[in-house]
Amino acid sequence: MSAASSDPSGMATAADGKELKQERAVRTRETILHAAAQLFADKGYPSVTILDVAQLAGMTKGAVYFHYANKEALALAVTSEFYRRLPAIAESVEELGLSPIASVAELLMRTALALRDNTMMQAGARLQIESALIGIDLPVPFQDYTGLVRTWLERAVALGELQHSTPPHALARVIVSAFFGTQHISWVLHDRQDIAERVLEVAETVLPSCHDALRTCPSVQGCRKT
Amino acid sequence: MSAASSDPSGMATAADGKELKQERAVRTRETILHAAAQLFADKGYPSVTILDVAQLAGMTKGAVYFHYANKEALALAVTSEFYRRLPAIAESVEELGLSPIASVAELLMRTALALRDNTMMQAGARLQIESALIGIDLPVPFQDYTGLVRTWLERAVALGELQHSTPPHALARVIVSAFFGTQHISWVLHDRQDIAERVLEVAETVLPSCHDALRTCPSVQGCRKT
Repeated sequence: MSAASSDPSGMATAADGKELKQERAVRTRETILHAAAQLFADKGYPSVTILDVAQLAGMTKGAVYFHYANKEALALAVTSEFYRRLPAIAESVEELGLSPIASVAELLMRTALALRDNTMMQAGARLQIESALIGIDLPVPFQDYTGLVRTWLERAVALGELQHSTPPHALARVIVSAFFGTQHISWVLHDRQDIAERVLEVAETVLPSCHDALRTCPSVQGCRKT
Repeated sequence: MSAASSDPSGMATAADGKELKQERAVRTRETILHAAAQLFADKGYPSVTILDVAQLAGMTKGAVYFHYANKEALALAVTSEFYRRLPAIAESVEELGLSPIASVAELLMRTALALRDNTMMQAGARLQIESALIGIDLPVPFQDYTGLVRTWLERAVALGELQHSTPPHALARVIVSAFFGTQHISWVLHDRQDIAERVLEVAETVLPSCHDALRTCPSVQGCRKT
């Protein structure tokens, strides 16, 4: 059963064994995290039990409790992963070297597609909505994402790419509100199947003078083609 | 204890007694409905029990069950009341005889103020967010409200009050998404204390050519004064 006994060379040292054990622990934690994310996304936080998580992960309740103290800890871990992925999406956009306005549109589109296609993102979004039902404080939502959008809008104003009667800090709030509302309504009414079109509609409406910028966004072009 | 025995004239007929009984039943149902709304708004659907409702309403669990079969029935009654009030707000706006664009802005502002100040509205909004956790189908959200906004926007286009690159049906979706997102974020981050300013910001941003129309909205002017 131990890593050493399954080593065909029979040469495993104690240090190798410890490393393999740690790797296994990391993999087990990931398996549990993904099972929890799947269940939170599908059923909602209040309806999920540790037994559900253990069964989906293919292990005992004891094994789950060994890695996560309780359901709140699982919710926090899933939410933390969600809030790690949002800035990672922003970084992937930054690397494209688009104009600031195109970057905002591409960020919204990539976030939308991640919400449509990725269970961890769906779980994070649902846990945010249900956060008042979770007995611990989760990270404060919306603020970092709004700050990101604001930074790009300020750059756009500085570069003369954006002329809007609403100043960047307020426009960033409106864009994030419209994005959040759109993805929620798309989820409730259409199981997120129309999320890309709806978010593109938001970008085109709230940034109306930016059609040229939108033409440079890979995700926008991908959505228009389909 | 009976209505007849409390009648000072001693002349109450059986019919009077029946009427008084019915009135009492209506009042009792209302008391239960308001207690349930308060609890759903404060604690969320999954955390509320029929015992909580009975205690807040000042009656026995049996009395609550006499009027509502279960917690789902209470959620449906509160939600139905919420969806009765939204068109009532729209009618109150219609009666002002504002221009179509000003009517849209006034509708958003009145809905925002109702969400800030009225427990039944807060409960309806929270139950919508938690609807996937409620074991019955609630009315389909967003569609009627979006239809209302769309009708006004179409009138605005017909009257030449609105020139927007986004057509009315899509603009209505964006406006309702931005409104919904704004009120939710205001709730989560600021307990709805900034909801009026934030919704005004949405109206000014998404309908940017409509500053003259906004000056005719009573709720917009009220918000700007404070």
